[in-house]
Amino acid sequence: MDFLNKTSGQSRVIIEHISPEIEGGRYAIKAIIGEKITVAADIFADGHDHISAFLKYKKNGAENWSQTRMQPIYGDRFEADFTVDSIGFHSYCIESFVDNGDTWLHEILLKINDGQLVELELLIGAEIVEKMIADGADIATIKNIKKLFTDKNNYEKAMEFVESPEMADLIYNFPHRNFVSISKELKLWVDRKKAGFSAWYSMFPRSAADNVGQHGTFKDVVKNVLPKVKQMGFDVLYIPPIHPIGKAFRKGKNNNTICEEGEPGVPYAIGSELGGHTAIQPELGTLADFKNMIKACKKEGIEVAMDLAIQCSPDHPWAKEHPYWFKIRPDGSIQYAENPPKKYQDIYPLNYETEKWKELWLELKHVIFTWAEWGIRIIRVDNPHTKSFQFWEWIIEETHKVYPDMIFLAEAFTRPSVMENLAKLGFTQSYTYYTWRNSKAELIEYMNALTQSEMSLYFRPNFWPNTHDILPVSLQSGNEAMYLIRYFMAATLTANYGIFGPFFEYMVSEAMPGKEEYLNSEKYEIAHWDWQKTNKLIELIKIVNKARNENLALQSTNNIHFCNIENDNLLAYFKTDTSTSSVTGKGNNILAVVNLDASTTQSGWVKVPIHLMGLGFDQHYKLTDLITGTEYWWKDEMNFVELNPSWI
Amino acid sequence: MDFLNKTSGQSRVIIEHISPEIEGGRYAIKAIIGEKITVAADIFADGHDHISAFLKYKKNGAENWSQTRMQPIYGDRFEADFTVDSIGFHSYCIESFVDNGDTWLHEILLKINDGQLVELELLIGAEIVEKMIADGADIATIKNIKKLFTDKNNYEKAMEFVESPEMADLIYNFPHRNFVSISKELKLWVDRKKAGFSAWYSMFPRSAADNVGQHGTFKDVVKNVLPKVKQMGFDVLYIPPIHPIGKAFRKGKNNNTICEEGEPGVPYAIGSELGGHTAIQPELGTLADFKNMIKACKKEGIEVAMDLAIQCSPDHPWAKEHPYWFKIRPDGSIQYAENPPKKYQDIYPLNYETEKWKELWLELKHVIFTWAEWGIRIIRVDNPHTKSFQFWEWIIEETHKVYPDMIFLAEAFTRPSVMENLAKLGFTQSYTYYTWRNSKAELIEYMNALTQSEMSLYFRPNFWPNTHDILPVSLQSGNEAMYLIRYFMAATLTANYGIFGPFFEYMVSEAMPGKEEYLNSEKYEIAHWDWQKTNKLIELIKIVNKARNENLALQSTNNIHFCNIENDNLLAYFKTDTSTSSVTGKGNNILAVVNLDASTTQSGWVKVPIHLMGLGFDQHYKLTDLITGTEYWWKDEMNFVELNPSWI
Repeated sequence: MDFLNKTSGQSRVIIEHISPEIEGGRYAIKAIIGEKITVAADIFADGHDHISAFLKYKKNGAENWSQTRMQPIYGDRFEADFTVDSIGFHSYCIESFVDNGDTWLHEILLKINDGQLVELELLIGAEIVEKMIADGADIATIKNIKKLFTDKNNYEKAMEFVESPEMADLIYNFPHRNFVSISKELKLWVDRKKAGFSAWYSMFPRSAADNVGQHGTFKDVVKNVLPKVKQMGFDVLYIPPIHPIGKAFRKGKNNNTICEEGEPGVPYAIGSELGGHTAIQPELGTLADFKNMIKACKKEGIEVAMDLAIQCSPDHPWAKEHPYWFKIRPDGSIQYAENPPKKYQDIYPLNYETEKWKELWLELKHVIFTWAEWGIRIIRVDNPHTKSFQFWEWIIEETHKVYPDMIFLAEAFTRPSVMENLAKLGFTQSYTYYTWRNSKAELIEYMNALTQSEMSLYFRPNFWPNTHDILPVSLQSGNEAMYLIRYFMAATLTANYGIFGPFFEYMVSEAMPGKEEYLNSEKYEIAHWDWQKTNKLIELIKIVNKARNENLALQSTNNIHFCNIENDNLLAYFKTDTSTSSVTGKGNNILAVVNLDASTTQSGWVKVPIHLMGLGFDQHYKLTDLITGTEYWWKDEMNFVELNPSWI
Repeated sequence: MDFLNKTSGQSRVIIEHISPEIEGGRYAIKAIIGEKITVAADIFADGHDHISAFLKYKKNGAENWSQTRMQPIYGDRFEADFTVDSIGFHSYCIESFVDNGDTWLHEILLKINDGQLVELELLIGAEIVEKMIADGADIATIKNIKKLFTDKNNYEKAMEFVESPEMADLIYNFPHRNFVSISKELKLWVDRKKAGFSAWYSMFPRSAADNVGQHGTFKDVVKNVLPKVKQMGFDVLYIPPIHPIGKAFRKGKNNNTICEEGEPGVPYAIGSELGGHTAIQPELGTLADFKNMIKACKKEGIEVAMDLAIQCSPDHPWAKEHPYWFKIRPDGSIQYAENPPKKYQDIYPLNYETEKWKELWLELKHVIFTWAEWGIRIIRVDNPHTKSFQFWEWIIEETHKVYPDMIFLAEAFTRPSVMENLAKLGFTQSYTYYTWRNSKAELIEYMNALTQSEMSLYFRPNFWPNTHDILPVSLQSGNEAMYLIRYFMAATLTANYGIFGPFFEYMVSEAMPGKEEYLNSEKYEIAHWDWQKTNKLIELIKIVNKARNENLALQSTNNIHFCNIENDNLLAYFKTDTSTSSVTGKGNNILAVVNLDASTTQSGWVKVPIHLMGLGFDQHYKLTDLITGTEYWWKDEMNFVELNPSWI
């Protein structure tokens, strides 16, 4: 390093091991508006001089930094926090310097205490206080102190002043920042509340019609589906692609390569002569109908999430107008999707290695911005892991510049490093392995990986017991208790969750033989549902969504603590609201106990973390069962629970 | 980020979590010449295409990178290694890309196996092999393959070739590097062998004279001390400062502020009218005498280490010529050292915040370069933690540019973050807390922190049971067994160690009352020693230094494995030579068992890590006691040991 040509050879403070940060600041940490961010670092200088450190933070684009003094916590570690009060990109960094004033005060007091003559030290003090004027101290006050410190006749009075709280206050409030060391600037992305707390209901609009055999419309969704979604307490309505469906190589029922006349095709085979990703399939209605549906949902407190599947039917306009956005084969044809030896001739993937990548990226940005103009602020992204990482980082940042309230959910079921990278690159929420985590050990291990590791800084899990692509083995038996269990955990382990309905709440459990996929999936055909039916599961959904809305403890994910309970079939977890002071015992506290055994009653002694409620031993506390309304008085840590799978 | 204006929007590979690296490449990792460096990283692309990755490395200044293909080890983790063959700064990085050839081969083979027609795929193959020409493949071979792949009449033969090992070899050897992702360049500093394996003997030359009351000289060292140091088997002779000693506020015997006429002063009060850090104290001899001593030592395989104490007596020429390098007080005087309320008026510390910091740094560089010209290649640095970190980083790098064989030992006994930072900034070796780690639990915990954490990448411990500043409580009893224990562990737990003699090997144990300092320390007075004496401890030193030189396993530090032994007074550790293949059982293996109880016989069953010797159960192996020469035949893991503190 070319040290001699730098100007800061005099700085003496080292700032390192800053937390939170991801890969040295390469990626932004994520937060929710109103969240408190605690920043810590190892900060030290050579020798014995005292140092002062400040945490600085600002919203990007703001002119000035806010700052707060960092406090030593142990060893060389300092800490401070700030609360984020607006959405968008923020920066934070740490500034530290040798604090000559504080060092001087510490040393002169030791000398006075030792009975040493400190005339010279008072003169040094006069120099130190003089600098406080430039740092904003009251000029008259400082001039008086300076006079006092330099007047040998007032030596006793000067010593008295040095020992006064006023002196300490001046030193604390007006440190002279000389030869400052500044850490690198770290990035923080702040989302709106829903990014961290949301309940998703997913369905196919084309199955919303009144009559069997009829193609459902956006109007049908408003009439038949919306009241039910509202009643169950969901706040996101996610629908698969609504664009014109291609005819070339169209798939039939149950993914049959032979498509009968009149079969509706797969919404993921996007694009026809009627248009592509910015067009609407006419059978669903008009753009005006779609916008009306968004409005009707909004009125009920529900947001519509669209599905971004970046792939084309051979009939998509892009295939004709921009064939070079795809991979061209030696015979001039466009390469269809493959997973050799399997062929998916109805789908053309885009080619992110195309020479025209900038043109392609800008067109995809145009798609998202068009949707945003329609009123969409939540996008579920289909298979983001098969598209370029660089593209995602760019498009999410580009979108957030204009629409900082846009939420992106990554539907990537793949290897951990890939899923984690997508979240680091900017995805707001992510699908998870929850769908396949069933045993107590698996669930605890997975939740701890999500909430207690670095992942908690950037990866927001969204738990789904099923999706329109996945009917896990655990649900294939159709056992009602298992549906209740899988639902309950999805909705309470994390603060973001969703279900694919009505398959889920009607407990439809027939799978394609040997697969974790639905038989007669709505991906390939139109279904017809009685949207009025209810059952025990739907009642539980209503109760749990209500409890989620009324209890702050259920609105965060990283606040989970697993409770010891000596039974491998019982999972117990405790959540406490971190936005209010829980140490005082006034915070909102939730204890969840789940019987993982869908067939047998299980019991055990759960160890309640009473210290997290500010309670000591021998204190009683009231539990209200939020499902039945029953109240219990418990005492101390160990308490007995018994759960019957047919309860409720 | 301004993605659209970058040229690499087409790269699709992510390279992250590279190991080894320190703080994202901020600091260099350290290695010893001949060491194998294993580099790993998570490397992945979107989608299902295959990737290839190369580890690249070169010595700084070299024109071309060497490279080696990385192999997948698990998940998305890839690994490769290289061996460093010269001292100095090196760089390494990782290059990866989507390997279209490998993807193509994988997919065409699946299709052939499935019985699909692959004419189009062969045409794609023709394009792929054609690119191999630019990557160095044989032109004629490639032209033949291209002809084969494009000739429909030879379809069967083409398919045969695709399935041949020759095809696989071409794909492996000539991958086309398109849209390459390159990791950041990481730094590696390579030291000479002695940086990782050294035995230090420290003494005061002024105490080397033949007669009591006489001031010892460099000539006396050669005559009286060198033969003994050689005989004991040390290879570094470290001596405290040898510069003119100041007279102002000179300290007397036992740090007395009153100095009697004729007392020699403290070698750390550097500088008088005779000169400063580049001058020699005349009582020790001339510069020529000093150089002769260096030469005489070298002849015996021993290097002389000088002591860099950057501080001045008030009589130092710098105080007169460059007062602005020091802190000036309001009365114009130079600020002496303080630890309020204590005053050290015989010492002026330098001021690293001086406006003339560049001038000061250059003068200190001049000092080190002068010593280097005298032939010095090892410098022990006194209290580096009270001097600017930035200065150290600069001066060590500046020195290494010209003298890459220079070794710097940091004498910083302070907080962990400070000691660690000095090592990260460049210090070759570091003093440690070993001096105060006595119990089995403490020793294991500390060794694991040094060798199993990130510290193993940059912090080379040098263990000292005592120093001229420290007589730890453990040695104050004078118990011979305790000296043997403390010595043995220093010399075998780590590969770098030292003792301060003859205080140590003569087991002088009288301390300043209530302190961990020597009474009648040679820092304040001249001692006189009989350099011929021997004792049990000296005999052990000879044996252990011989064993260290003859056993590669004892020449590394991070190769330690602690062995289970159910006795808190017995510490057992196993070291295996990592430079040769130990898995074959042919490597050099050392088992050390220490009785930490200096008064009682202790016994227990030690669990030998036989797998590290390539041994299975029911196999016998021979142990040779390197102290007594006795041979034992052991079997399996669990074997009995009994140690009597008065043995040997």
